[in-house]
Amino acid sequence: MNDMTSLGIVSPQSMFFAEPLPLQSGAQIADYTLVYETYGTLNADRSNAVLVCHALNASHHVAGTYGDDKGTKGWWDNMVGPGKPLDTNRFFVIGVNNLGSCFGSTGPMHTNPATGKPYGAHFPVITVEDWVQAQARLADRLGIEQFAAVMGGSLGGMQALSWSIQFPERLRHCLVIASTPKLTAQNIAFDDVARQAILTDPQYHGGDFYEHGVVPKNGLRVARMLGHITYLSDDDMAAKFGRDLRSGSYQFGYGIDFEIESYLRYQGDKFSEYFDANTYLLITKALDYFDPARDFGGNLSKALEGTRAKFLVVSFSTDWRFAPERSREIVEALVDNQRIVTYAEIDAPHGHDAFLLDDVRYMNVVRSYFDRMALEIGVTKAGEAA
Amino acid sequence: MNDMTSLGIVSPQSMFFAEPLPLQSGAQIADYTLVYETYGTLNADRSNAVLVCHALNASHHVAGTYGDDKGTKGWWDNMVGPGKPLDTNRFFVIGVNNLGSCFGSTGPMHTNPATGKPYGAHFPVITVEDWVQAQARLADRLGIEQFAAVMGGSLGGMQALSWSIQFPERLRHCLVIASTPKLTAQNIAFDDVARQAILTDPQYHGGDFYEHGVVPKNGLRVARMLGHITYLSDDDMAAKFGRDLRSGSYQFGYGIDFEIESYLRYQGDKFSEYFDANTYLLITKALDYFDPARDFGGNLSKALEGTRAKFLVVSFSTDWRFAPERSREIVEALVDNQRIVTYAEIDAPHGHDAFLLDDVRYMNVVRSYFDRMALEIGVTKAGEAA
Repeated sequence: MNDMTSLGIVSPQSMFFAEPLPLQSGAQIADYTLVYETYGTLNADRSNAVLVCHALNASHHVAGTYGDDKGTKGWWDNMVGPGKPLDTNRFFVIGVNNLGSCFGSTGPMHTNPATGKPYGAHFPVITVEDWVQAQARLADRLGIEQFAAVMGGSLGGMQALSWSIQFPERLRHCLVIASTPKLTAQNIAFDDVARQAILTDPQYHGGDFYEHGVVPKNGLRVARMLGHITYLSDDDMAAKFGRDLRSGSYQFGYGIDFEIESYLRYQGDKFSEYFDANTYLLITKALDYFDPARDFGGNLSKALEGTRAKFLVVSFSTDWRFAPERSREIVEALVDNQRIVTYAEIDAPHGHDAFLLDDVRYMNVVRSYFDRMALEIGVTKAGEAA
Repeated sequence: MNDMTSLGIVSPQSMFFAEPLPLQSGAQIADYTLVYETYGTLNADRSNAVLVCHALNASHHVAGTYGDDKGTKGWWDNMVGPGKPLDTNRFFVIGVNNLGSCFGSTGPMHTNPATGKPYGAHFPVITVEDWVQAQARLADRLGIEQFAAVMGGSLGGMQALSWSIQFPERLRHCLVIASTPKLTAQNIAFDDVARQAILTDPQYHGGDFYEHGVVPKNGLRVARMLGHITYLSDDDMAAKFGRDLRSGSYQFGYGIDFEIESYLRYQGDKFSEYFDANTYLLITKALDYFDPARDFGGNLSKALEGTRAKFLVVSFSTDWRFAPERSREIVEALVDNQRIVTYAEIDAPHGHDAFLLDDVRYMNVVRSYFDRMALEIGVTKAGEAA
């Protein structure tokens, strides 16, 4: 029997853009490719498209699997699929890999047409706003004038919020999950430690490590270990690992004593095998730079004045990376502008990572939100009467 | 005019111990030197001695200056001196550099008598309990049978607590400030990321970098940057640095954008110039291993059953490294044992670092505590009638 709630096998597509993309930095990308996936069917009036934006180390591969390998499940497969909260029987879902990523879209490991060598650290620094501009061009090509919704968690939530500011008329709904209107000094500090670990790894070679046939694995590994600490809550880490010892007693050396060490090093090792160091730098910069209120003297209400979408904002009680206070700032600024906004603060133990996990209340909130949206837009499940 | 509240010029002394020190790990140190400083005068009945234990990157140089250079002020000069909360007109204060440190006492950069080379990573792993044993030998030699008090902040507080367990009759008072009865999984995780940054720095050379004439500066720098984030509160960092830009605009590169980056990198650079990498590893392990309740099935009350001292426990509201909850665990376990314990939870914005800073309420609590202790012991200011 087929799993009726699974998308099954999916495959990525790619689209080439020959027109240069001007960037917020003043630089531009001459031409580029975006890799994306779609699930479900775009309806006749093109009103049921949902764009899912990805966070730091995810990609266009939101849901489904590649071939029969269950290990290739998309990063938000619990959220997106037939009968899932974002139901692909009703909605046409698009996942797009951002520029500068290392999962297919044009990025630092690709050839710089100006030099004939990989971009490396010369790949231009991209902002959240730039990503949204590139995504909008993809939407143009796919013939989607207005999304039913743009949604994302964490850095993906920043992109959704940026969509509502840059293209107010191009989305009916905006779902901003476990996100923030800007990073705090502490957030930036963690990002900079991670970047310094990479930049000072001798294998980084000023970003041109591809030519040297090496990878700054040590730096990437430390960056990922550190990142991981900020994704989990203190309590969750205590519950999962506590002070449990790997082998029952202290080793009195610098190997592994505690289970938490084993777990983090494993996560770091795994990550350093597949993630690109230049992409890591680039994406953390996009995080640091995001601050839509900056052009409005720090006034977020002003920054959100032009938005027209309806909003769902979700935060998680134990998320100390982007704490509920950060989401409430967004909600308050939206309320200031008399926008329609639903806010859910989910009491969940899993810290920032909760946005990726199967919390029943969280999933139900998103499900209900999309159910209402389906009614509003007049989309039905495949086979249902309208 | 002289500053009457300053100790003025002080100088370190050193003491050689020829008897091997057995360690908790089962290893031993054949012989060793401890460097220490003393301030004030030991009274006739030797009842006014106070031992000050140091934390991660501090030393025996608690107060006063070396020569006329104000930049050489001791790390707790605001706490210790004539007329200070720990008044050297009344008390005889001892600061001792711990074994394995890089500030004079026998440590990894010293010659291993067994090989004729620097110990490097072969310096045995030392625990808080071991440090206390070594400190007790110094007390023996100085003729101090019982301290008026043993005190310390952070890792220093762990040593004070360990004194109260290992040598219950040798201290009248125990001052445990901004400390914890054990590290959490998250605390250990941060320590392990710092260690991995050092251990994977190619300049570390398995701990034998001395022979190579290099220092694993990059690793130390990342370790210190990371540590620093945990010493400050989120709010304090926001207040001091916020999202302030170094040069007023985004640089769109991987240099310095934000003031917080500039600050952290500076702290990291400075630290990597003077601190020993093997010492850093060793001290973080001592932190991770400390857990006096471990031998009592995790029951801290049982672990503290044999204590006889009176206690002052102090925590700081915004300390997220060793949060007030951790101090309250100590207080509760002491109350369980009907010990006399004073607890002060200071509402201070500066995070973990608050224990080193001039918070008026904090300083007053410690001052009052020592004033009462002076009455109890019958010590008076030099020149006062008893």
